[in-house]
Parts: sequence; structure tokens; C-alpha cells
Amino acid sequence: MTSSNDLARIETRIHDLVADFMTLDEEPTDAVCAHISNDVTAQAIASGEGGKRLRARLALDVFDIFSEEAAQTNRDAMLDFACGIEVFQTAALIHDDIIDDSPLRRGRPSAHRALSETTHSAAIGNGLGIMLGDMLATASVQIAQQAASSLPQSDSLNKAFLTMHREVEIGQVLDLAVEMSPMDDPEELVQSSLNVFRWKTASYTTIAPLEFGLLATGMEPEQARANALSIGKPLGLAFQLADDLLDVVGNSNATGKPVGGDIREGKRTVLLADALQAADEAQRAELLDMWEQSERGDDQVRRAIALFNETGAIARSYERIGALWQSTVQHIESLYEDSAKDGLVEACARFIPQAVLV
Amino acid sequence: MTSSNDLARIETRIHDLVADFMTLDEEPTDAVCAHISNDVTAQAIASGEGGKRLRARLALDVFDIFSEEAAQTNRDAMLDFACGIEVFQTAALIHDDIIDDSPLRRGRPSAHRALSETTHSAAIGNGLGIMLGDMLATASVQIAQQAASSLPQSDSLNKAFLTMHREVEIGQVLDLAVEMSPMDDPEELVQSSLNVFRWKTASYTTIAPLEFGLLATGMEPEQARANALSIGKPLGLAFQLADDLLDVVGNSNATGKPVGGDIREGKRTVLLADALQAADEAQRAELLDMWEQSERGDDQVRRAIALFNETGAIARSYERIGALWQSTVQHIESLYEDSAKDGLVEACARFIPQAVLV
Repeated sequence: MTSSNDLARIETRIHDLVADFMTLDEEPTDAVCAHISNDVTAQAIASGEGGKRLRARLALDVFDIFSEEAAQTNRDAMLDFACGIEVFQTAALIHDDIIDDSPLRRGRPSAHRALSETTHSAAIGNGLGIMLGDMLATASVQIAQQAASSLPQSDSLNKAFLTMHREVEIGQVLDLAVEMSPMDDPEELVQSSLNVFRWKTASYTTIAPLEFGLLATGMEPEQARANALSIGKPLGLAFQLADDLLDVVGNSNATGKPVGGDIREGKRTVLLADALQAADEAQRAELLDMWEQSERGDDQVRRAIALFNETGAIARSYERIGALWQSTVQHIESLYEDSAKDGLVEACARFIPQAVLV
Repeated sequence: MTSSNDLARIETRIHDLVADFMTLDEEPTDAVCAHISNDVTAQAIASGEGGKRLRARLALDVFDIFSEEAAQTNRDAMLDFACGIEVFQTAALIHDDIIDDSPLRRGRPSAHRALSETTHSAAIGNGLGIMLGDMLATASVQIAQQAASSLPQSDSLNKAFLTMHREVEIGQVLDLAVEMSPMDDPEELVQSSLNVFRWKTASYTTIAPLEFGLLATGMEPEQARANALSIGKPLGLAFQLADDLLDVVGNSNATGKPVGGDIREGKRTVLLADALQAADEAQRAELLDMWEQSERGDDQVRRAIALFNETGAIARSYERIGALWQSTVQHIESLYEDSAKDGLVEACARFIPQAVLV
């Protein structure tokens, strides 16, 4: 299993790999260009910091659990490959924050906002943010490609890495589509939102790390994909549902985010859909009215949370998470035996906070 | 040499490869998601149309010129690999158009503007545009990776393809940096602008296609890179200078763009830098004043072109292009012999319109 030592090495490698990628082989000829390049490089490093590295750890855990003989060279390569997932996430979050114009990420200014500040121009900051996301997406593929060359089944690993990119990008498009969809059919809204989670979240959070770890220990590609989907899909959905639930029932010290942030932003979550579905006529009208406003303040956030409780949406969410977690465990138990089974359950459990498992 | 038949096949393959990439393996569960996915897919195909395919043709020409025995399977793979360059260009242009908020591309609405129209929302259109650029960037790497698996030196080809991505992304950052730089040192502005051309344009227009073609015919990677740089760097700079020059001296029927578009946008071109450098005090003040305005109308475009003429900047640009083209030819002649030499000069000449070679 990954140790705190591994976590420290993941941080160091992400820093070094990104810094390498951003360094120009030929120096820019003038001071202004050098200045901006330095700002963008500094932001590339800063944007990569502060993650919990859950995804890299899962890939590495799977590798450790299934490696017959833990060849150290291969493990170093697997750690780098796992860092590629984290760098890709940073790239995706930078673009996501531009799309939503989010001011903050992990408690610090988001990349495009920080770059707007540095350059005293929102237009240039947004432009540099788009490019920084592009650069880190390319960096992630390069890191993975380089690492895969020292691992078994390198072609399949490279292919799977691009599939991860593609699925997240499809997920982002679907996410925008759901934000535009009418709210008159709550059952459809539940299904659309869960579908978005499969693409936007489960893809790179759980499915891909599982698949990468299994491929790198020599499992045949079709089998690795099937196993990763059966375990990773329910686990990834549960992870996102737990995140949304903690946004409502958690306290902001624990999550690092203000309570009810999703409500404030008017996001169309599964919680909202469940609430709409179970609501009586008056409650439904109240919720729809709130979500039609351009903004929701503290009072409305409190009222929405009360309605999520009254309609049973919050209880429904605990149920959903419990059932999905059970499904994950059952798939693991049906696929593996003994210590592999126990190790994998332990590694997967890291994605679901104890507080949401009733 | 590539034929009109090849050009038709390039179009067909780009269409098919992009359509394949955009197709969901699992159907979205609801009508709204399906609708938006279809809009984005249609735009992915539309954005890929209408290019001259100069880059794909150069890669394929180099492959044809240096292939000892033209194995048809390899040539099919090389054609697909070459399509990867074109798909990458489409991805880069989509993000570039968002950064500049350009309304048009190749005479049609730019991707983000078209998607804003379809979704009746500039915010959603921009968001979908960012994601579409991301998707096509991923698609380009996947297309290249798949094709490289049937070509010699596939690892080097994959690596070089990502280097191309990285260099263009660095170029876009430097381009934004130059737009922010002070205009008080024209000599530095010339050097910065030429430096931007090397990264933003020459990288993927000439250097990468040459390198890909040489690698795929078995040339050793370091040599292929060195040859591609010595031929491709001057050729790529000449190509961009010619493009900027035609923007000023061309007629809009031939180029498909309104005359003086760069002036209208206030771009800091080498033409402007040359004009500032050769200008007397009054001319310099007039140019600086024009570029400090937020907009430049028809009268100012005409006046700027007159100043580019009077200061000798336009003549200087013809000279620069001629000298760079000579450098390209000399490098080709020093590196290759006989029919290879002639074929490569012919293939490279396609990048420089006759009208700008005096």
C-alpha cells in the first residue's frame, strides 16, 4: 500500500516533471517573454499543488497489490505514470475554472484569476489560463508516455491514458448540457446527472487508475478494462455523490469549502433532482424558483438545505452512496481473492469518507 | 509527390477519424445531452474543413521522397499520421479564436461563436469551444499514436508529436507576452516577433512535418530533428512573414481575408516593428498613436499601409522572405542530392506564394 513516503515522492515528481516540461530548450530572446514564461511556469507548479493525490495513490496501490515481484524500476515508472493522472487533473480543473469563472481552487485563486492578477488583464489572464491548461494536458500525456516505456503493455497504457482524456472531455460537454436542460423532468435529471458523473468524474478518478494499475501488472487489456469498469464505475459515482453530499451536510472546516457552494452556484446536482422528484407541489415550486434566480444568498442556501432534508433527498443520497459502495465491494469480492481482495477494498475505501457511510 | 487524389483522401480521413473519436461508446441517456453532443460533433467536423492541408502534404511528400520502397500499408499510416497534424491545428485555432474572440475562421463563424449561436449563450458557447479544442487536441494525439504503431520508429514519432504540441503552446504564451510588451524598442520587437513565429508557426507548419516524414522513413531521430530544424525554421518564418505581408499587399479575393486585418486588430507584427525602426520621429509618433487606440478604422488601415510603404517596411519584408527562402534552399542543397533535393525544394516552395518572392 502507498505510504506517506510515497505521497511525498508523488509531490516531488509532479513538481519536477512539470518544471521540466515548462522549461524552454531555447531561451526566449527578450525580458518580457521571459517574464511571462516564468509567471506561467510558476502558476503551472502552483496549480498542481494541494491535491490529495487519491488517483495517483489508487493506481500505485493496485500496482503494489497485483505485482508478483515488485521490481523497483517498474514501481518508479508506475509512480511517474500515476503522476500523469494528477497533472491531467490539474489541466482539466484549470479549464473547468475558466468555464465556470470560479475565483478559487483549493482555497487559492484559480489559475486564470491568478494570471489575470499578474498581467493586470482579465483577457490576457483567461488566454494564458487556456494555454496553461493545454500545456499541462500535453505534459500529462508526455509524462505517461515516458513512464509507460518502462512498463509492461506500454501501448495499451498509452491508449488507455488518452481514453481517460477523451472521457473527461466528453463529461465536461455533458455537464454543460445538463446545466442547459429543462428541470421539468426530475427523473431524467437524476439519470443525466449520474451519467455526467460516470464520464466527468468516475472516468479519471477511479476507472482509469484501476485500469492503469492492472495493465502495468500485466493483465490482458480487455480484462483490465472490464474489471476497472465494474469496480470503478460505482466507486466513482459514490465518490462524486459523497462530495456533493458533504457540500450540504459537511462543515466548511473539514471540506475547505463554504457549505452549500453547489446551491449558491445553482448547480443541478442529483440532490436537487431527488428533492424535486420527492417534493410536493409547493416545495417543487419553491426550489424551481430559487434555481431560476441568478443568485442564491445565505438564506436561500439554508432554505434549500432544509428542503433537501424535508423531501428526503439527503437520506436518499446516503442510500445511493451505500448501495454503490456495496456494489464496489461485491465486484471486488467476486473478482479477487484473499489479500488482493482485502487490499483493494482498503484502497477503494479511501474514496468514500466514513461520515457518509451509514 | 502528393496528388489531388491524396488531398481528397486527407479530407475523407480527417472526417472519419474525427467522427470516430467524437462518437460515444455508450449512448447518453437523455435527449438534451444527445442534442448537445451532436452539436459539438458537427462543429468538430465543420471546424476541420477548409484548410489547405499544407502541413499534411509536406509530411507525406517527405515520406514519398525518402521512402526506399513505398510500401502501401506504411503510406496509409503516414497519411493518417499527417492528418493528426491537421486535427491538432484545428484544435489550436479553436482555442486561439477564443483567446482573441475572433468572430470568423476560414470565412465561417469560429467554433465558439457558432456554438454560442446554437446554444443561445456566449458563456456556454465559449465553454463548449474550450472543450472542443481539448477534445480535438486529444483526438490528434490518438490519431498519431494509432498511425505510428504501423510506422518505423513509432516511439520517436509519438514523442515528436507531443513536442509539436508543446512548442505551439509555448508559442501561444509568447504571442500573448509580445502583445503586452512595450513598443519603445523596435529592434527588440522584431526579435520577439520572429521568436514567436519560430514557436507558434514554424514548429507545426514546417519543422514537425519535415521531422515526421524523415522519422517515418527511418532516419535516426537526432539527425531527423536537426535536418527538420535547419530547413523548417527559415521556411516557417518565411511562411508567416508572407502571410503577414499578404495581409497588407494582397487583395482580399485572393486571401479570403479583408485587407489589413492585422492592422485593424492592432497586432504587433514584424512589419510594424520594421516600420517603427525605420520611421522618422513624426511617422513613429503617428504609428504608436494608432496602435494605442482601441480600434483602427478603414482610414487608419490605409494610412498605416502607406506608412509601412514609406518607411520601407514592406520592402524589408520582401527582403526577409527572400533571404529566408534562400536559406531553406541552401540547407536542402547541402543535405541532399539529386531527385530528393529537387523534390524537397518543390514541396517546400508550396509554403511561399510566388507573389512575395521578388
